[in-house]
Amino acid sequence: MDTIELRSDNCAGIAPEILSAVADTNVGTTIAYGDDEVTARLHDVVREVFEHDTARVFPVTSGTAANSLSLSALCPPWGSVLCHGTAHIIVNEGGATSMFGGGVVMSPIGGDDFRIDPHRLAAALDAVGWGDPHQSQPAALSLTEPTDMGTVYRPAEVERLSTTAKERGLRVHLDGARLANALVSLECSPADVTWRAGVDVLSLGATKNGGFSAEAIVAFDERAADELVYRLKRAGHVTSKMRFQSAQLIAYLTDGLWLRLARSSNASAARLADGLTGLGVGLLNRPDVNMLFAEVGDDVATDLERRGLLFYRIRPGVIRLVTSWQTTDADVDRALAAFAAALDGDGPRQRAT
Amino acid sequence: MDTIELRSDNCAGIAPEILSAVADTNVGTTIAYGDDEVTARLHDVVREVFEHDTARVFPVTSGTAANSLSLSALCPPWGSVLCHGTAHIIVNEGGATSMFGGGVVMSPIGGDDFRIDPHRLAAALDAVGWGDPHQSQPAALSLTEPTDMGTVYRPAEVERLSTTAKERGLRVHLDGARLANALVSLECSPADVTWRAGVDVLSLGATKNGGFSAEAIVAFDERAADELVYRLKRAGHVTSKMRFQSAQLIAYLTDGLWLRLARSSNASAARLADGLTGLGVGLLNRPDVNMLFAEVGDDVATDLERRGLLFYRIRPGVIRLVTSWQTTDADVDRALAAFAAALDGDGPRQRAT
Amino acid sequence: MDTIELRSDNCAGIAPEILSAVADTNVGTTIAYGDDEVTARLHDVVREVFEHDTARVFPVTSGTAANSLSLSALCPPWGSVLCHGTAHIIVNEGGATSMFGGGVVMSPIGGDDFRIDPHRLAAALDAVGWGDPHQSQPAALSLTEPTDMGTVYRPAEVERLSTTAKERGLRVHLDGARLANALVSLECSPADVTWRAGVDVLSLGATKNGGFSAEAIVAFDERAADELVYRLKRAGHVTSKMRFQSAQLIAYLTDGLWLRLARSSNASAARLADGLTGLGVGLLNRPDVNMLFAEVGDDVATDLERRGLLFYRIRPGVIRLVTSWQTTDADVDRALAAFAAALDGDGPRQRAT
Amino acid sequence: MDTIELRSDNCAGIAPEILSAVADTNVGTTIAYGDDEVTARLHDVVREVFEHDTARVFPVTSGTAANSLSLSALCPPWGSVLCHGTAHIIVNEGGATSMFGGGVVMSPIGGDDFRIDPHRLAAALDAVGWGDPHQSQPAALSLTEPTDMGTVYRPAEVERLSTTAKERGLRVHLDGARLANALVSLECSPADVTWRAGVDVLSLGATKNGGFSAEAIVAFDERAADELVYRLKRAGHVTSKMRFQSAQLIAYLTDGLWLRLARSSNASAARLADGLTGLGVGLLNRPDVNMLFAEVGDDVATDLERRGLLFYRIRPGVIRLVTSWQTTDADVDRALAAFAAALDGDGPRQRAT
Repeated sequence: MDTIELRSDNCAGIAPEILSAVADTNVGTTIAYGDDEVTARLHDVVREVFEHDTARVFPVTSGTAANSLSLSALCPPWGSVLCHGTAHIIVNEGGATSMFGGGVVMSPIGGDDFRIDPHRLAAALDAVGWGDPHQSQPAALSLTEPTDMGTVYRPAEVERLSTTAKERGLRVHLDGARLANALVSLECSPADVTWRAGVDVLSLGATKNGGFSAEAIVAFDERAADELVYRLKRAGHVTSKMRFQSAQLIAYLTDGLWLRLARSSNASAARLADGLTGLGVGLLNRPDVNMLFAEVGDDVATDLERRGLLFYRIRPGVIRLVTSWQTTDADVDRALAAFAAALDGDGPRQRAT
Repeated sequence: MDTIELRSDNCAGIAPEILSAVADTNVGTTIAYGDDEVTARLHDVVREVFEHDTARVFPVTSGTAANSLSLSALCPPWGSVLCHGTAHIIVNEGGATSMFGGGVVMSPIGGDDFRIDPHRLAAALDAVGWGDPHQSQPAALSLTEPTDMGTVYRPAEVERLSTTAKERGLRVHLDGARLANALVSLECSPADVTWRAGVDVLSLGATKNGGFSAEAIVAFDERAADELVYRLKRAGHVTSKMRFQSAQLIAYLTDGLWLRLARSSNASAARLADGLTGLGVGLLNRPDVNMLFAEVGDDVATDLERRGLLFYRIRPGVIRLVTSWQTTDADVDRALAAFAAALDGDGPRQRAT
Repeated sequence: MDTIELRSDNCAGIAPEILSAVADTNVGTTIAYGDDEVTARLHDVVREVFEHDTARVFPVTSGTAANSLSLSALCPPWGSVLCHGTAHIIVNEGGATSMFGGGVVMSPIGGDDFRIDPHRLAAALDAVGWGDPHQSQPAALSLTEPTDMGTVYRPAEVERLSTTAKERGLRVHLDGARLANALVSLECSPADVTWRAGVDVLSLGATKNGGFSAEAIVAFDERAADELVYRLKRAGHVTSKMRFQSAQLIAYLTDGLWLRLARSSNASAARLADGLTGLGVGLLNRPDVNMLFAEVGDDVATDLERRGLLFYRIRPGVIRLVTSWQTTDADVDRALAAFAAALDGDGPRQRAT
Repeated sequence: MDTIELRSDNCAGIAPEILSAVADTNVGTTIAYGDDEVTARLHDVVREVFEHDTARVFPVTSGTAANSLSLSALCPPWGSVLCHGTAHIIVNEGGATSMFGGGVVMSPIGGDDFRIDPHRLAAALDAVGWGDPHQSQPAALSLTEPTDMGTVYRPAEVERLSTTAKERGLRVHLDGARLANALVSLECSPADVTWRAGVDVLSLGATKNGGFSAEAIVAFDERAADELVYRLKRAGHVTSKMRFQSAQLIAYLTDGLWLRLARSSNASAARLADGLTGLGVGLLNRPDVNMLFAEVGDDVATDLERRGLLFYRIRPGVIRLVTSWQTTDADVDRALAAFAAALDGDGPRQRAT
């Protein structure tokens, strides 16, 4: 039986352009640990793409590394990171931020659509005992764009949250593990949703969208960049043959490849969302990017698994469906056919009437 | 002017077999974060190569990560790591072991040939106030094979040191960033110099010898392996597309590729050592593997640089020369020609008489 | 104007019996760092009072130290501590538990009366991805007895929560900064609400109840005790002249002094609660021990301050009133007179009708 | 048999003036956690005694806390602390500095008389790869005054070392666990050997010299002081009833009590040194303060123990003798009598001829 991959965009392979870039870089020898000319070129590419003259980029190999090390450079050990309760840093990184931060704590802030509500952020900041060492001192705001539940902040929304945070002295981190998917969805420039909206440090993902050992921290803030030089090395995140990660990132950001891949991925999710809505399946989230959370009931979920659909169960009755740059229209149509059959078998409770 | 690369084996490229393995793995989709079938196969390969039924392997992307995370799983935070004063963990990793270890300290033990002297190890252990919380408690012995100065421990020597350490309750780590070079030099099996000689956890390097984002921790000790599952994740060292690292490591360990590459690298260094000795250049180290430390004086060093030789200056008058799997006999001969010319210009003080 | 102290039991002085014990211990010389005969006697006293043959006691100088170091000995760095959202460790200790724990995180569990609800605890444990390194692994349950909001768990309630936690492999910590106040309220033995109810490590407070540099960790669990030897020293919490802390703790636990002091404190709070209820003031908490949270409105609070009442404002309209061993009936009556006058000025909205 | 206490000044009791100060402070109630009027007065006293307008003082309860927390406020996590190889922070604090520093490492610098040699300090700083993240970056110099081996730095010597360190951007810490003993020996002012000589943060000991839960950090550097507010709290080193520590420190620093006590202690050691020299016993250290290291041989040591002398054996044949404010001339004379008898029994090898 052929399976249909909707578990995660991490399950996809390497985009051909990116693999070629690695092969093309494998010529001669060069200096190690990021002092090479490929990595130097990456700095230029990042500065151009983000329209920022002094941004510095640090290739790493995982989003957890990007997030937790970024935050460790933005917070003192006695600080706290404010983030949504569904943020990857609080749910899925095994306490990495607390560890690298020297005992930093994470404080969840609520809001609809899995996004921080600006009023709640302001209220949380108003309630802090600033300067009271008994209380962790909010030091960074971490936003996720798109969120881990597939919704996006518009640039003006990022800016509003950043402004509120910065008025109280916080610095701002953006977890962009799927940033390209958000950019395509928002139709905005990389600058608009990052430094122009107040972001100091960005976790820039490439792995989920066609790379294979290439995430990066992009620091718009010089002080954070200076710290990251040391923090990355002692965390084991400075690879000796960094040029092969830099080459991936250059290919990713060149000629709009990252946006092209993300556009395909988002389009697959939109096609899937339309089909599911037509079948009467309820979605938990606005399908802004390439992730859907569908309420199907456990029996349908089991039936779908039998039909070869690969996905994760999030909680009883709810499944997560993620498309990638590799997902084809045929994959989506086969998935929808499986849904139609499974729902049919499950009777009218799960169907539109 | 053509340059001759002798700075570091980190400057070399990717071995063709390893790059092909990555490309060959780029088929279809699979589950992320190491639960894939390629990584499962890697476990089997490691167990076979190391002749150990329960060893577990954890791909990482840097030797610093491999070393420091291994040691964090072997030591309590109040422990100390005993290592030679020239060990990479104490000299070149920016305090990574202390950081990941929660404040672990490193205690240097001396010895000739850049290797720990067993008598000094025993004396150091005898002098400890065991159970006295004012004193850091030795908890791990970390050996480097080959050492960062290019010398090797014979299996019996590793075993003697391990035994002394284990009698006092320490566990044993081996930094094998260049393990293949040692194996070729020692003509011993991987098992002989690791678990059979008392090693609990091994940092297994592949990057310097033809890989590009593929180092690994090999845990022969189950308790350490159980901890590493968590420690690696929260350190950001569990990559989502781990299969592409696993594929590199499989290729590396299959059909003796790692030994073949290392043999070539060692042979280049031996050819270079012979030539240098013939020219009357003094070496600081026994040329056991692929690294030479040569006393040439600063004027000769500068002259060599002018002639296109790439190397690092270690201290006044001393240079480090490292060959790699990519170094050719022609490279070595050109290097020797450069030496001959430079020494000639420098007069008789540096030459054999 | 005479003030009436109701800010905190930390504002009270040293009980005469405890100060005398320090003076009486100031004879001759003795060995330092807790190897002295006074500290040895403290072990015996603790074992007798807690009816436990192998309990070990570690004097420290703050409750934050007692809590955070206890938890660091119960959790691996990748663990999480489950506690109520109002727990001191999450609200008032500046992230100490995360710091000493090497990046441990704290997860709030809800429940009425500021106490953890056993169903919510069970549900939280059911939802964990056990063994999944992406998720912090619950490793300790921390209960507060009495809670920071002045309510108590009955021994059977502690036992039920402990049992639920232990079934999933967690260990159990009890923050007993005001344990004596709870014991008097519950009319139970120290053993009943600690180790007999499943508690592995206890933070035993004495400072708030008449001591002045004397808190203690009481470890019923041997493994935790063994770790604490090292963790305390490297945290700077092993004082050289420990005998003067031990002497305080011995006096505190001898002849029921701790219960006598707490009984007085609780009685003052009960008298105050009765009076306030008579005046129609609403309380947020069951007045189980020596703390009351009263809803008075901000104008009344300001008026009370003008009348010399010392207390803390918790949030708009709500004030905290804490009695101590030093509070007298006259103090309470003067406080009630101030309330009566302030409420009278404020009109009928705040009074009983 | 009467014993003679020469193990440690930590074995002595509380000076009467200091105990009285605690009792005198035990009046009424006051605000907790250091916001009280006694602690406010302590700030004034410290500023006056140290002739520094903005110094801030933080009472703690152990020298380990004072040292390690001071250094954590002077070093980034990737920094290193340079200190003599015999420094308390490297030998006797269980790795506290590495822990509180987030993985800071300690680098020993040699020198005669257990003091850092300025040439070796300069050489060590010259050898650093500044800005190279592979190497820990020296960030603080920690001097011990007097050293743990009983020798002193003159103010000009402190200043020379500080200047060398500061030229490279390091900050300077002074471990003054026995500062009063040094001041008396050097006949200099507290300012001369601290901030006027370049010290940024001082660990000021009182416990060994008559206090009982009173050490302090004195921060002459504002940035360090600002950090210490948070670092101390989350380390559990902000006591709720701080006024009783502050009262001890005020008494200690008032009317020269600290110098009077130290002068007595030093005089006892000098009397003992004179007597031992007269008996032909060799000393390892210059007897600058209240500590002597005597070479007596193991048989004599055992004999001395039999005669009631209490002391520590440092290594085979060498014993440490420490006097305190409590040591009397009669104690010294009895100790010398014991030496005379023990040496007599041991024959001429250990005697003057």
